[in-house]
Amino acid sequence: MIIPDFQDMLQAHERIKPHIHCTPVITSSYFNELIGAKLFFKCENFQKAGAFKVRGASNAVFGLDDTLAGHGVATHSSGNHALSLSYAAGRRGIPCHVVMPRTAPKAKKAAVRGYGGIITECEPSTTSREEVFAQVQGKTGAEFVHPYNDPRVIAGQATCSQEFLKQTDGVDIMIAPIGGGGMVSGTCLTLSRIAPEIQIIAAEPEQADDAARSFKAGNIIADDAPQTIADGLKVPLKELTWHFVRNHVTDILTASEQEIIDAMKLTWARMKIIIEPSCAVPLAIILKNKDRFAGKRIGIIITGGNVDLDELPWLKSSTTN
Amino acid sequence: MIIPDFQDMLQAHERIKPHIHCTPVITSSYFNELIGAKLFFKCENFQKAGAFKVRGASNAVFGLDDTLAGHGVATHSSGNHALSLSYAAGRRGIPCHVVMPRTAPKAKKAAVRGYGGIITECEPSTTSREEVFAQVQGKTGAEFVHPYNDPRVIAGQATCSQEFLKQTDGVDIMIAPIGGGGMVSGTCLTLSRIAPEIQIIAAEPEQADDAARSFKAGNIIADDAPQTIADGLKVPLKELTWHFVRNHVTDILTASEQEIIDAMKLTWARMKIIIEPSCAVPLAIILKNKDRFAGKRIGIIITGGNVDLDELPWLKSSTTN
Repeated sequence: MIIPDFQDMLQAHERIKPHIHCTPVITSSYFNELIGAKLFFKCENFQKAGAFKVRGASNAVFGLDDTLAGHGVATHSSGNHALSLSYAAGRRGIPCHVVMPRTAPKAKKAAVRGYGGIITECEPSTTSREEVFAQVQGKTGAEFVHPYNDPRVIAGQATCSQEFLKQTDGVDIMIAPIGGGGMVSGTCLTLSRIAPEIQIIAAEPEQADDAARSFKAGNIIADDAPQTIADGLKVPLKELTWHFVRNHVTDILTASEQEIIDAMKLTWARMKIIIEPSCAVPLAIILKNKDRFAGKRIGIIITGGNVDLDELPWLKSSTTN
Repeated sequence: MIIPDFQDMLQAHERIKPHIHCTPVITSSYFNELIGAKLFFKCENFQKAGAFKVRGASNAVFGLDDTLAGHGVATHSSGNHALSLSYAAGRRGIPCHVVMPRTAPKAKKAAVRGYGGIITECEPSTTSREEVFAQVQGKTGAEFVHPYNDPRVIAGQATCSQEFLKQTDGVDIMIAPIGGGGMVSGTCLTLSRIAPEIQIIAAEPEQADDAARSFKAGNIIADDAPQTIADGLKVPLKELTWHFVRNHVTDILTASEQEIIDAMKLTWARMKIIIEPSCAVPLAIILKNKDRFAGKRIGIIITGGNVDLDELPWLKSSTTN
């Protein structure tokens, strides 16, 4: 197991800077007053391809030597990593093969194809995803870039906190959603080195709380096919992300589906930004645990903004077209 | 008729700075490539109370002497001016009376009440609005702050272009939606003085095209109750805004309801920002007149982000709750 370090993050940052945005950190007096804290939202929903995942994907793609790159890249993903890898591969001019659950939001599939990604569909379970993926990789010889259990990807995601610390005057707590743990691991990588006093809290849907249970149990617990509206958070921890979670995360808290939907809608209504369900989880958790967060300076990583606008979770009878 | 001048704008800016945001100017490589132009979006959807109207409202409220202010302020409004005046009055600690059409989005009504505004409902026509308003004002003695036909309000809106010019390296064209013409008049006020080479284009819904017809006819044409999804643009020009439109606007272009909806949805999907239908009109017009705008540097005023999230225009059967 290769554990990426701070130097890897710095190299990643130099490598990917031409291909990503330094996304803004924004504040909301509404939420500050509501919670009695100072919140700093790192807006990766404004990132290239609409999510932080372009950081790790770009680091992997642009770090390949020409021979390897010639076969292209491949991945399985619940969405944003697929978009991001397609975007990065497109920038380098190499093919990108993507295995996606057939149930993934159609807006995400269309966007992957929009960036030139080649999709093969699988069933919405980890087992099926890995099976179909092996077939695709065998046929193409493409370089596998795992959505999160990959040192290149974690080093890339770690650049987000590096930017954040330069954009703010420091925080007491950093909170980010956790699915496979790529963003949380990157956050751990950077903060444990340059701001170890910052508490790192991971935010997870109750209905996909394998990371919270793993954290309590002291070993990885993986569910095969959890159901949650937070589409990007259904995947389990793997050994590399578990390493960071186990060693550096302060706590993992959970929120219900309704709490996630309410926090998402409230963010749209008051901050006027499009955030996807996954990144409403941290805010949902802060809202339901106000006492724990009141008076603190809190960094929140808004991980992405890729939403199917025809299928909004608070509109149960919304149409598809 | 008191016509506000550049000095009034400068005074307004000093007066309102503590109460408003200097909103960001953002860009979108997606739209730049789609149109073959350079677009600069002045994001007044991130403004206090969710819209540019807080500029004019704050200038009016904070410019009152204490005696006048003691009776409070009052207005009729299709929504954002009501929010903004309530916000500004709340900051000064004086009452704000608001006459609103009963058909205004309930999200806007709730927000007005959220800022402490006191609502009296009228029918959705200019005639009814003015009638009910006269009753309210007679009863309270509150200072009338017209949503746009008021020199204090226009001087306030004019601060938006002042900020914009400092935030960018200049543009060839500035485009803004037109309803009553407050923002367009403010834009004319500032640009005609410090950047007279910039073309000012006003953007209007086809179904509420009274400003476009006025512009062609050479005199104000007012419709009583036009129907358009662009809720903020239903009101007619008045003599003060007509003065600026007639003297400084280069052209008024229109877009259909479907073009407005498509531009709005595309902005949500690609830029991850919530914009209301009114401010999708400029982008709709640019998209349908690409030849006219290609190769240009274009400033677009995103006027507001107050949308009823339960009633999205592309979801025809969306539920209300």
